[in-house]
Amino acid sequence: MEMPAPNDAILGLKPALVKRLLRVLPAEAVIHETVETRAYECDALTAYRCQPLCAVLPSSTDEVAEVLRICHEMGVPVVPRGAGTSLAGGALPTADCVILGVARMNAVLDTDYANRTIRVQAGRTNLSVTGAVEADGFFYAPDPSSQLACAIAGNIAMNSGGAHCLKYGVTTNNLLGVTMVMMDGTVIELGGAHMDAGGYDLLGLVCGSEGQLGVVTEATLRILPKPEGARPVLMGYDSNEVAGQVVSDIIKAGVLPVAIEFMDRPCIRATEAFAKAGYPDCEALLIVEVEGSDAEIDAQLALITDIARRHNPVELREAADEDQAKRIWLGRKSAFGAMGQINDYMCLDGTIPVSQLPYVLRRIGELSAQYGLDVGNVFHAGDGNMHPLILYNANTPGELEKCEAMGADILRLCVEVGGCLTGEHGVGIEKRDLMVDQFAPDDLDIQMAVKDVFDPGWLLNPAKVFPLAASEGRRAA
Amino acid sequence: MEMPAPNDAILGLKPALVKRLLRVLPAEAVIHETVETRAYECDALTAYRCQPLCAVLPSSTDEVAEVLRICHEMGVPVVPRGAGTSLAGGALPTADCVILGVARMNAVLDTDYANRTIRVQAGRTNLSVTGAVEADGFFYAPDPSSQLACAIAGNIAMNSGGAHCLKYGVTTNNLLGVTMVMMDGTVIELGGAHMDAGGYDLLGLVCGSEGQLGVVTEATLRILPKPEGARPVLMGYDSNEVAGQVVSDIIKAGVLPVAIEFMDRPCIRATEAFAKAGYPDCEALLIVEVEGSDAEIDAQLALITDIARRHNPVELREAADEDQAKRIWLGRKSAFGAMGQINDYMCLDGTIPVSQLPYVLRRIGELSAQYGLDVGNVFHAGDGNMHPLILYNANTPGELEKCEAMGADILRLCVEVGGCLTGEHGVGIEKRDLMVDQFAPDDLDIQMAVKDVFDPGWLLNPAKVFPLAASEGRRAA
Repeated sequence: MEMPAPNDAILGLKPALVKRLLRVLPAEAVIHETVETRAYECDALTAYRCQPLCAVLPSSTDEVAEVLRICHEMGVPVVPRGAGTSLAGGALPTADCVILGVARMNAVLDTDYANRTIRVQAGRTNLSVTGAVEADGFFYAPDPSSQLACAIAGNIAMNSGGAHCLKYGVTTNNLLGVTMVMMDGTVIELGGAHMDAGGYDLLGLVCGSEGQLGVVTEATLRILPKPEGARPVLMGYDSNEVAGQVVSDIIKAGVLPVAIEFMDRPCIRATEAFAKAGYPDCEALLIVEVEGSDAEIDAQLALITDIARRHNPVELREAADEDQAKRIWLGRKSAFGAMGQINDYMCLDGTIPVSQLPYVLRRIGELSAQYGLDVGNVFHAGDGNMHPLILYNANTPGELEKCEAMGADILRLCVEVGGCLTGEHGVGIEKRDLMVDQFAPDDLDIQMAVKDVFDPGWLLNPAKVFPLAASEGRRAA
Repeated sequence: MEMPAPNDAILGLKPALVKRLLRVLPAEAVIHETVETRAYECDALTAYRCQPLCAVLPSSTDEVAEVLRICHEMGVPVVPRGAGTSLAGGALPTADCVILGVARMNAVLDTDYANRTIRVQAGRTNLSVTGAVEADGFFYAPDPSSQLACAIAGNIAMNSGGAHCLKYGVTTNNLLGVTMVMMDGTVIELGGAHMDAGGYDLLGLVCGSEGQLGVVTEATLRILPKPEGARPVLMGYDSNEVAGQVVSDIIKAGVLPVAIEFMDRPCIRATEAFAKAGYPDCEALLIVEVEGSDAEIDAQLALITDIARRHNPVELREAADEDQAKRIWLGRKSAFGAMGQINDYMCLDGTIPVSQLPYVLRRIGELSAQYGLDVGNVFHAGDGNMHPLILYNANTPGELEKCEAMGADILRLCVEVGGCLTGEHGVGIEKRDLMVDQFAPDDLDIQMAVKDVFDPGWLLNPAKVFPLAASEGRRAA
């Protein structure tokens, strides 16, 4: 993936820049020795690496504003970084940028159970938001797989989802307000602890804008009372078509599971070898989980298992207790790790209409044969958010490029069937050049014109989201 | 409410404008005689009236693009109009504008049950979206009180809610994609029949932007399977504080009713005299409705009535059958009409944190005494969306102004307690001058800069949403 050449004039500014940053931040918050900046050279898309000019770790909105004001005055690009768990290269540095990490900003500022909200600094990890309220019976719903590590700031940047977003929605549905610093250091408040505001929905715009419009420093989040209980059911089928039909039928029946997860045979086999969760050896496996009181769970699962049975499952297993429930989830939660045991992998993130599942899985199989690269599929089937994992060997010359080409074909396929390039990982650099397959030139222009408003000099995370050619004239400014 | 003086130069363009419009639209779609344009002089905020230059009724995206291109070239402002049911003056004309009505664009373009979507022209009424799919067991969830008349275009412009949005969310949560024509005639596609798209969430931005960024001509909407059943329970309490506490407790308990409606004594009395629904004569009345299978309904209502009982209700009545359910809803659905029998009224639309309900109701009572104007409160309590109805006599000189001042005080109170100016009606002209109470100058500037991107000449619905003084330099351009 091509990155723009670093601006030599900016590289030369490093000593002056570091000096100014040290005036507004404590010494340990300005990381500028090459041996230390290496920690920031990539995010979870480790195939791409680049060391930044320096990294800063401010601990308040005011400090963030000071840093941005300095970079703005000196014309230095800034790449905001949550916890660096992006699978799309959202936090990948350029050589001439300052990495602005929010890891130190992890305080809980306020909890309000009567109004079901919590206000946190944006560097707080996803799971520790729930950690702050679970003793009182509440939780924060969006649950990306990386929730132990990933930061709310990154969740907001990428509009992250998770296995449970079928019922609870993604980040944008659980975000009430933010404090955001714009590139020139101006601090603005968007949204609040209420349902809707007058004027334009800039909060909705900022959520998912991949750190290109401003740096979010604080967020007010919706918290929910923990459901009384939850119970998963495991279903195995002999064909992807049939399993896809079961998903469609459940969705159509008007019952709302919290999760419908799908794994195909390559993924089931890898997972079973690795985690030994007791999965059947079949073509397609579904895990459907419902929540509520025992009576509610019984009622919902009766409907769901009835649908499942009509399609002749090779296995149908409802968890009888907590242990069995954990065992059903064990394999699914180990799937990425299991695939990683076999080889390097690239995790894609396309979204498709649920009804297209069987067709898309068949086409992915054909592409796998054509490119000679294995693919495992594990994904949130309820909302059509796919995560094909393409296996490749990073040490075999040319294999990364082949993997990229195959990934691009799969994502174009998602767009073709009426879906889109990304469900919850964002565009980053990974899908930047595919945006032209999703959007017409006028559509892209209006998006870039919106970035012009917030960041006229295109200094914030500049080489992401839009094809380099499309944004060239703007970034040059 | 002050409107900017019409631009005489534009008024003089009328003959040339009408001639050009008649070249791209059939004669019956161009309304320019003063006797006919009177039909467009106001929306449901009838206190304000102004006749437009002319009105057009295009019937396709192409025709809308032609109209906008002509107006853009001639510098004529355009006010888009759905069904004219805005309570905030969102569709109020200026004397120098073209009203662009979408009433003829009411076709269903596609229904897709497997993916639970419907695509319609934006002039289709809210209720007739459900009408198109209900025989197959589906419905469209957002349900504004005006749903028989109001258009999807207006629902999108104002991000409309309704009694059932506690469970199903407001328009933005049920909108998947739109075709939109920008002021210069460019047609863009935002979103699609999938969960999320790459790039910025311009769909979320457009939803709720009050017709200021473009004219939405087609929309893809999420449809849902009709629940098996629904059942309301009626509760009466001797104090607003206690009823407010019951709402908080239900929300905290983790059960999710589809609706929690609240009426205060003035509203209960007016309604009972008008509709005779058999409501108790008490201080505060709640209607809580849950949905699902019989077993699910029983489980949820057991929890809810248990909470209700702990607070000593003066009445607690669960609907035993369809007839009793209808009777419970009858009063609530007649409340606006009942208040209208007593006097003219202005319906406000502030939103507050649910925990502030008792305090805000007490303060509204004090303001009512201070201004000498009666107020009835009927609102969606579950999400804190209040609709105070201020009674006044339009024929008594000075009373409208007094009512406006009191309304402004109530809305400022909503902002003060951590809420906002509008839940679902929009800002329009009604709350335009209060935006400075909600937003800091930097917050407003960035919103207006976003409008600059979509409509640099500020020709679309120009004198709404932002205080006239704030937008003056822009509108003059």
